[in-house]
Amino acid sequence: MQSNTKGQGLITLTTDFGTADWFVGTMKGVIARINPRATVVDISHEIPFGDVRAGALALAASCRFFPARTVHLVVVDPGVGSARVGLAIETEDYLFVGPDNGVLSWALIGQKVKAVHRLENERLFLKPVSRTFHGRDIFAPAAAHLSAGVPCSDLGPRQRGWRRLHWPRTKSEGDAICGQVIYVDRFGNSISNLREDACGFARSKAGVCLVGRVPCPLRDSYGAVPIGRPVAIWGSSGLLEIAVNGGSAARRLDLKVGSPVKFLTKPVPCKGQRGSVKGRPRP
Amino acid sequence: MQSNTKGQGLITLTTDFGTADWFVGTMKGVIARINPRATVVDISHEIPFGDVRAGALALAASCRFFPARTVHLVVVDPGVGSARVGLAIETEDYLFVGPDNGVLSWALIGQKVKAVHRLENERLFLKPVSRTFHGRDIFAPAAAHLSAGVPCSDLGPRQRGWRRLHWPRTKSEGDAICGQVIYVDRFGNSISNLREDACGFARSKAGVCLVGRVPCPLRDSYGAVPIGRPVAIWGSSGLLEIAVNGGSAARRLDLKVGSPVKFLTKPVPCKGQRGSVKGRPRP
Amino acid sequence: MQSNTKGQGLITLTTDFGTADWFVGTMKGVIARINPRATVVDISHEIPFGDVRAGALALAASCRFFPARTVHLVVVDPGVGSARVGLAIETEDYLFVGPDNGVLSWALIGQKVKAVHRLENERLFLKPVSRTFHGRDIFAPAAAHLSAGVPCSDLGPRQRGWRRLHWPRTKSEGDAICGQVIYVDRFGNSISNLREDACGFARSKAGVCLVGRVPCPLRDSYGAVPIGRPVAIWGSSGLLEIAVNGGSAARRLDLKVGSPVKFLTKPVPCKGQRGSVKGRPRP
Repeated sequence: MQSNTKGQGLITLTTDFGTADWFVGTMKGVIARINPRATVVDISHEIPFGDVRAGALALAASCRFFPARTVHLVVVDPGVGSARVGLAIETEDYLFVGPDNGVLSWALIGQKVKAVHRLENERLFLKPVSRTFHGRDIFAPAAAHLSAGVPCSDLGPRQRGWRRLHWPRTKSEGDAICGQVIYVDRFGNSISNLREDACGFARSKAGVCLVGRVPCPLRDSYGAVPIGRPVAIWGSSGLLEIAVNGGSAARRLDLKVGSPVKFLTKPVPCKGQRGSVKGRPRP
Repeated sequence: MQSNTKGQGLITLTTDFGTADWFVGTMKGVIARINPRATVVDISHEIPFGDVRAGALALAASCRFFPARTVHLVVVDPGVGSARVGLAIETEDYLFVGPDNGVLSWALIGQKVKAVHRLENERLFLKPVSRTFHGRDIFAPAAAHLSAGVPCSDLGPRQRGWRRLHWPRTKSEGDAICGQVIYVDRFGNSISNLREDACGFARSKAGVCLVGRVPCPLRDSYGAVPIGRPVAIWGSSGLLEIAVNGGSAARRLDLKVGSPVKFLTKPVPCKGQRGSVKGRPRP
Repeated sequence: MQSNTKGQGLITLTTDFGTADWFVGTMKGVIARINPRATVVDISHEIPFGDVRAGALALAASCRFFPARTVHLVVVDPGVGSARVGLAIETEDYLFVGPDNGVLSWALIGQKVKAVHRLENERLFLKPVSRTFHGRDIFAPAAAHLSAGVPCSDLGPRQRGWRRLHWPRTKSEGDAICGQVIYVDRFGNSISNLREDACGFARSKAGVCLVGRVPCPLRDSYGAVPIGRPVAIWGSSGLLEIAVNGGSAARRLDLKVGSPVKFLTKPVPCKGQRGSVKGRPRP
């Protein structure tokens, strides 16, 4: 590899391995042996065990903030050792490596895919290949080779498509759009599947969400409601979030993945919404 | 930036974001896009949510161990989205970036401050700026630009001062100096606000602390008292710590932030203090 | 140091410091000041407090996956401040730095040791040396200097040997080999001391483990048994693991470090073992 900037050898890592054991560190050792110039950035290693959807969301929410040609490696792989296939996918902007179980699919929405290859070139594997740690023996070497400039097509035969995770649908119901919580972050903020750039939401100057019967006024910041009060906010990933100022919306409103969230497009007055929202929410 | 050593592009990162979500990784992506040569070192991402004092202490205790010109970025920012200002502060040794809520102030004690600028140059922001993640959209870009050699003055207008956190005072009471616990570390060691280099403590050859009625003899190492017994020790940050050999002082003595600690300057004999302390404690 | 590839300045870090406090970040600052070109890879910072055996296993399981000349630094050091010695050990492949309490010993099994030196050259210490944080003041500087090309012999006087941890013995009992659990990972997989490459196990085409009275059939993958059922598998470190498909073997079978595990060399039929295992387990 002739590149001499770190960005050209950047690999991100998203797994459900945790950080207590030596698994993630070992993968980084394997990467360093193949491409000593690679820089590895951890996205998360605390994806809940085998939770392909949570891994897919973490990747989709973070990948586009990295430099072009970054290799995004995801190992959330409940099927390790089974017949599931490993993939390398090249888009116009990035390279993605992971098991073909849907974990890559949300990140690929809206990306121009140039090539999809199965990880079947055994010459690039770390030998002997273990039965239980393909992250170390198959996926990390693939990402390292890609980061060093090995073309995607060297990794194995071309494949037509990839497994796609269903993105939970939203539904119109009169003056409401109904969605659901898809992720709860460490602060208890509950991220829904309602997208700012869809459904004309970007033009909403005001609004209110219903979580059960609790109204959550749409605001520009957590602090726009009193401490302890719920608020709806267009989050940093472009999705509607339910939060509680200074607290955990998940705990306070008993929210979890799948909990219904209703966005009222014709807002009704509600407690906690005093006066009008100032300024248009930035897109 | 012309520098070609990693140290000149070093950024430390201290946040309350946790590591389960994609927030920290995303900030590193933003940094890599702006300065591919930057190296990011995590100080902690487990500052308790919104705990500005804990963030201030983590930064103050660690910052001076880094190479000159390191950029220290702290995002403990309960006021995100409110009117609070973001700052870049240049000292003779380092650059500091964070919200102006006091989180930078303890690190600045004793540093020669050369410039203070508000982060208001929108051309350096990541656009669109989200309402909830200024760490990604404002602070990370500022740190990345500084690490790449952009002068502090390019980030925004000069500001006179910065918000300072109150450092808990110590009080003399007869032959005792009274302080309090300011931090409990992962081992349960309870760090107090009693400084070795103040009050003539550096010359104390012996001493004893009182935690409630429990005497904790001043020693040179945890192992100088029997397993399970409390000990006072000049900790690695120059502050008096209460520890329990092989155990947790916080649990054993029910210590938390704010718990009073009394240092007796004229030590009285106590159980656990057999014989004199050998050698002068190293400074 | 003239080397200009990152691999030649690679340092791994294994501690029981946790990641909530600023201890690990501070060590990285110290390293960056001494060798700005060094890259640090975290193996784990969640070794249970003072658990020398867990630290030894993490190091032994991961170290050989790193590039030659990597400096492996381990700070699991319940004796900090006592008379225990710090060591730098050079082998044909790697450099190891840590306290002489056995934590390095399992990684050294099978390695050709070239030199053992005590860390007693005070000119290389970070001054003033604290009483409680030799990781920062003695060990990190030693590793940094080694990574920058300083010879092992500069660190202090030669020493003959190093403290070795006892590797729990296995015992033959009729047609069974009896071992024990030595580690439980984050998934609840329970790693035993039964080695694939010893006792002719490598040739075992089939087999069954007994955990108490629960038979665990030897399989090639977790998914080879129904969800919720126990399975024995040759793990990625070459040791026999007890797992539960989609669950935690530790919780389901009440396993902890020290729990007995019996491998039957003449397998008897058992529930969950339907049909023969296909293919020889890869070595």
